Amino acid sequence: MDSWLDLDPDAPFGLGTLPYGVVSPSAGGDRRVAVAIGGQALDLAAAAGAGILGPRLVTEWFAADSLNRFMSTGPTMWRELRERLVELLSASRHQDRTRGVLVERQSLREWLPWDVTDYVDFYSFEAHAKATARIFRPSSPELPPSWRSLPIGYHGRAGSVVVSGTEVTRPRGQYLDDAGAVVDGPTRKLDIEAEVGFVVGVGRDGPARLQEDVLEDHVFGVVLVNDWSARDVQRWEYVPLGPFLGKSFATSVSAWVTPLVAFDQARVEGPPQDPLPPPYLAGCDRRGIDLRLRVDVNTTTVAEPPFEGMYWSPAQQLAHLTSNGARLRTGDLYASGTVSGWEPGQAGSLLEASLDGTVPVVLDDGTQRGYLRDGDTVTITARTGRGPRVDLGPVVGRVRPPLAEPF
Amino acid sequence: MDSWLDLDPDAPFGLGTLPYGVVSPSAGGDRRVAVAIGGQALDLAAAAGAGILGPRLVTEWFAADSLNRFMSTGPTMWRELRERLVELLSASRHQDRTRGVLVERQSLREWLPWDVTDYVDFYSFEAHAKATARIFRPSSPELPPSWRSLPIGYHGRAGSVVVSGTEVTRPRGQYLDDAGAVVDGPTRKLDIEAEVGFVVGVGRDGPARLQEDVLEDHVFGVVLVNDWSARDVQRWEYVPLGPFLGKSFATSVSAWVTPLVAFDQARVEGPPQDPLPPPYLAGCDRRGIDLRLRVDVNTTTVAEPPFEGMYWSPAQQLAHLTSNGARLRTGDLYASGTVSGWEPGQAGSLLEASLDGTVPVVLDDGTQRGYLRDGDTVTITARTGRGPRVDLGPVVGRVRPPLAEPF
Repeated sequence: MDSWLDLDPDAPFGLGTLPYGVVSPSAGGDRRVAVAIGGQALDLAAAAGAGILGPRLVTEWFAADSLNRFMSTGPTMWRELRERLVELLSASRHQDRTRGVLVERQSLREWLPWDVTDYVDFYSFEAHAKATARIFRPSSPELPPSWRSLPIGYHGRAGSVVVSGTEVTRPRGQYLDDAGAVVDGPTRKLDIEAEVGFVVGVGRDGPARLQEDVLEDHVFGVVLVNDWSARDVQRWEYVPLGPFLGKSFATSVSAWVTPLVAFDQARVEGPPQDPLPPPYLAGCDRRGIDLRLRVDVNTTTVAEPPFEGMYWSPAQQLAHLTSNGARLRTGDLYASGTVSGWEPGQAGSLLEASLDGTVPVVLDDGTQRGYLRDGDTVTITARTGRGPRVDLGPVVGRVRPPLAEPF
Repeated sequence: MDSWLDLDPDAPFGLGTLPYGVVSPSAGGDRRVAVAIGGQALDLAAAAGAGILGPRLVTEWFAADSLNRFMSTGPTMWRELRERLVELLSASRHQDRTRGVLVERQSLREWLPWDVTDYVDFYSFEAHAKATARIFRPSSPELPPSWRSLPIGYHGRAGSVVVSGTEVTRPRGQYLDDAGAVVDGPTRKLDIEAEVGFVVGVGRDGPARLQEDVLEDHVFGVVLVNDWSARDVQRWEYVPLGPFLGKSFATSVSAWVTPLVAFDQARVEGPPQDPLPPPYLAGCDRRGIDLRLRVDVNTTTVAEPPFEGMYWSPAQQLAHLTSNGARLRTGDLYASGTVSGWEPGQAGSLLEASLDGTVPVVLDDGTQRGYLRDGDTVTITARTGRGPRVDLGPVVGRVRPPLAEPF
């Protein structure tokens, strides 16, 4: 279906994407929920107020600082709004009144689109797990013992999730220097992790395990995630309780949340699972999404990681994280873990791409990167690899130099 | 100072404690913030509405579902309310109008007293760290390499924090059976962790490190924490990213938050730190709190762990968790890690007390516990060991049998 808008088919956010975000006029004003279409944003609070969304889609859901209220309404309402938006943007009879609620996106400030409640990060790419094990634990087995039995994951810091565009200050922390002495200073190994994140719309209480359709019933949408990491800090602190300050200084997410349903024609069977996991995992939808990520450092593309190779599917990850009765809430975010493929140029982190800095990546300007330098800008984008073009919102972040130590 | 109330000096919640909670009439009605005094609760919403708190303490802070709004006002307001409450409850001229806003606590339902944003759990008792290392990692060093260099910690699941009194269903999960095969079933090693938790009232943004007075400027109050743990699940999943489902099914906290300032006369220097940590830690207030915990399983006291022996002070824990620039928010909770001393009878977990179930604890009724049984009730209480009596709110939880597997 085509839009009456003059959309560039080679640019993001066509009629097949329609991602949700929270914006305000750059010049100042209240935040509201909007949907992106090409270079414009459709102001949903204004649209609901003008009565063009229909009676069931109420203004209060969109005249809001976050998507949480609308996300909590569930799949029926999500679908109703999406269908209505397609109609408004494609049928020429709606053109006049719809134009009245469109705003150029470049005139808007983009905010963190939802209130993040809990944040879980998985570790579900075999190429990444093996590469990090070789670097961090050279004398240990290639994969942790439980890796093929369950989707290994951990909790990150929800309060450190920031919206794309937010600058990231190089963190200070403790690590060992080359002589093995403890140093407290700015990290020397600032890295990225290119990931895909799933945003929970509908929560649930109680210890019962989730059943089939777990993904479609609970997940509202999909974002890109840059889980910034300080590798030297992480390495010194992470035994035995896992990553903490090496990760908790910043996690960037897309300003635009693409609805899960947009990826229906890009779903793809995941890799075979051997051994077969327990029924609560084996019974889940095994399909992933064919998404092609691209990671740019400044103007150089340093990686094109394929998401479709994820060992554990998004439905399995969700089933696992709630399998002990853990409460799920509107606003929970779970991320895939670093997306890495088996081929050169498919690593979603510099840890892997540069072998912990020993084989630097060369940028277009001839400079080398073992890890990130101050001033570097990292941009992650993604689109579907099959079916109609659907985009994830980009994640951009620039590295600021560390603050001076106050002591 | 004495109260005109007829308070039992050997019972909790005298005039030196005055902890805050959120309650509603058991028969139904709105939630409001209250302060506990003996067996009664002073309804702060009613008190503010009746004008007996003074003009600066406004009703909206207390006619609320959580303490967060009041907690965010900061130390000056916290102190002003506490001083006013002492005056109302001790000066006989206030007796009549104050009695009008007192309610028997047994007629009230207690709610989770604040909205938990992020939850961090430390690992700061040397006796606990060494005991768990001997059991989980017998071939590794007695302490993790960074243990004396920084307070090791990790993020838990904020959405799984529940109020004292909430029943805890025995979780299902994956673990290895005695033959080394993967099992998915109800945990066979359900345990407790008796901890002390610190509730953040005043947050902060930005990458600068916190300075002195970090604790008094940011921490509103103190609670008891039972970080329920499934040891078999934890052991199978925790390499390399730390505990996840073995902990995330439930964490119980006190219904009453005791203000930090109540412990002024129970502050005590922590153990010597060797080697000296980096300045951002060495420069912190090194004092802990002399708190004596008691852990009961049903009617038997199984442990009396001393909190004063914590290696890293609460101020050091807070300075560390924000030392990388991590955002701190009103509602953040950080817990001490399992409180364990060096003597027999001082272990804050059954993992330690029973040596992973191999040397069961014997209860008063003659039954044995390697780990918890369905139907067991765990009660953790604590009071100061020096200075005037100050109590932490108790944490109580009963174990429910697992749900049947739905497959």
